[in-house]
Amino acid sequence: MIRIIEVGPRDGLQNEKSILTTEDKFEFISGLIASGLKSIEVTSFVKAPAIPQMADSQELFLKVKKELGQSGASFPCLVPNIKGYETAKKLGVKEIAIFTATSDSFTAKNINATVDESFDRMREVTEEAKKDNILIRGYVSTAFGCPYEGVIDIKKVISVTKRLFDLGVYEVSVGDTIGVAVPQQVRSTVRAMKNEFPIGKIAMHFHDTRGMAPTNIYASLEEGITTFDSSAGGLGGCPYAKGATGNVATEDLWYLLHSQGLDTGVDIEALSQASKFILEKLNRQTDSKFLRAYLNTGKV
Amino acid sequence: MIRIIEVGPRDGLQNEKSILTTEDKFEFISGLIASGLKSIEVTSFVKAPAIPQMADSQELFLKVKKELGQSGASFPCLVPNIKGYETAKKLGVKEIAIFTATSDSFTAKNINATVDESFDRMREVTEEAKKDNILIRGYVSTAFGCPYEGVIDIKKVISVTKRLFDLGVYEVSVGDTIGVAVPQQVRSTVRAMKNEFPIGKIAMHFHDTRGMAPTNIYASLEEGITTFDSSAGGLGGCPYAKGATGNVATEDLWYLLHSQGLDTGVDIEALSQASKFILEKLNRQTDSKFLRAYLNTGKV
Repeated sequence: MIRIIEVGPRDGLQNEKSILTTEDKFEFISGLIASGLKSIEVTSFVKAPAIPQMADSQELFLKVKKELGQSGASFPCLVPNIKGYETAKKLGVKEIAIFTATSDSFTAKNINATVDESFDRMREVTEEAKKDNILIRGYVSTAFGCPYEGVIDIKKVISVTKRLFDLGVYEVSVGDTIGVAVPQQVRSTVRAMKNEFPIGKIAMHFHDTRGMAPTNIYASLEEGITTFDSSAGGLGGCPYAKGATGNVATEDLWYLLHSQGLDTGVDIEALSQASKFILEKLNRQTDSKFLRAYLNTGKV
Repeated sequence: MIRIIEVGPRDGLQNEKSILTTEDKFEFISGLIASGLKSIEVTSFVKAPAIPQMADSQELFLKVKKELGQSGASFPCLVPNIKGYETAKKLGVKEIAIFTATSDSFTAKNINATVDESFDRMREVTEEAKKDNILIRGYVSTAFGCPYEGVIDIKKVISVTKRLFDLGVYEVSVGDTIGVAVPQQVRSTVRAMKNEFPIGKIAMHFHDTRGMAPTNIYASLEEGITTFDSSAGGLGGCPYAKGATGNVATEDLWYLLHSQGLDTGVDIEALSQASKFILEKLNRQTDSKFLRAYLNTGKV
């Protein structure tokens, strides 16, 4: 069984220009639940003007909690700082995600902090979250390459991952934020990770900017990774390469896992209908070739 | 060193609706040669009304022979029957490609013959070609799945491949015509092939209809395959799934090989410019995510 962490409603939508209604986002999330997905990153609690798509995060989370709270799925929310954490706690969020990156130049542009400063902010959050019995997931962005610093030394990735575990996260998601990872590098990274951490606590988070995400997932599977992040319909884009693809589509991940005989508990028809719904609301095509062919032929 | 057989001008363009001028096709082929590609399937000698894009095949081949004949590249042409062969021979073609498939229902619709009848037609051609010292390459279509018969038994693929070698082809290109191959199946097929034939005589020909071509190439490389067919810019489509992707893009193949540290002798900048030229003439976008990101960022 492979775990899929669906990040479409957060990581996907935050990179989409068209602002959706809360109702449409909720419909999308309901569809994802109906497909069998068990962990859906719903939203993030950032300052409202920073990411307009997340302006209704409180309203959306409350609606999800009220109407889908009994589904058995978890609904992690991204929390950038203690203020966001306090909002999350107030709303009854049971799992949060915190994030940093491998390089100071990336965190400087992304969150106006050095990597060390991002750890200070995260520590404030995790100290509270642990007291409040709220689960914490960690992200390492730019784990394979940084738009400003190029290829990233594996030692840096290991070091940041270790520091995240030290803060008390139950899992670290290793992110190819700009979609530059290649299979050899993925294998080396996962091998180095395996020497340091239990492999079951490492998730991979690929972007398909250069069409390499399925191959990187394949290489990760061969190295023993069992958790992957993905975005339904391939929602989202890449702010570092205009017009390029963002997160790997959950349908692409599903198709690869299915082809390897691996169970996901996800119904592809229900999933693809949820993606179709939200893509129509966004008035855009999917970047997933599999989804395109599937919607076209109705066959896997 | 990995051999790339560029099939864009033939397999790619024959599935494009916009009919190009001979001059544009020639410019495209010149660009491909400039990028370092050494084997380019230029055209096919079919009855003119069958494939309108190939109506100028004789004129195009003669221009290529005259102006690019000293480039050191080979320019194979597809030959469906003895009539096509006679044309090829008359024009001075030095290498031909012949083709069949794994299933009678596919050959029936594609060339109005059973698989056995296709071998009768090919035998007529190969008997002459061998006398004339013209090199012969063979294609097995629908090697991983047939639009009419579904998944194909590996034994059928082996049997058709063997019959092609018996006709005297120097290499067999194993084609995933409808883009349904998955990595496990690719591994099993290549392993079965290795038991029967020298691996250096087997080429893989993937379509990226479901985004799985790079992963299938990766699995093939791991099993020892050293020759791949591809189409610059991902030219072509899939007649069995409307709007879907056809041949894997040569740029995607290049990027994967490059990422594995494998040499191809191909300059990516020159290749991408040749693709950009022809895509503009066809008034279409590329389906290659890598090429999109590369043209956008100018960086691999």
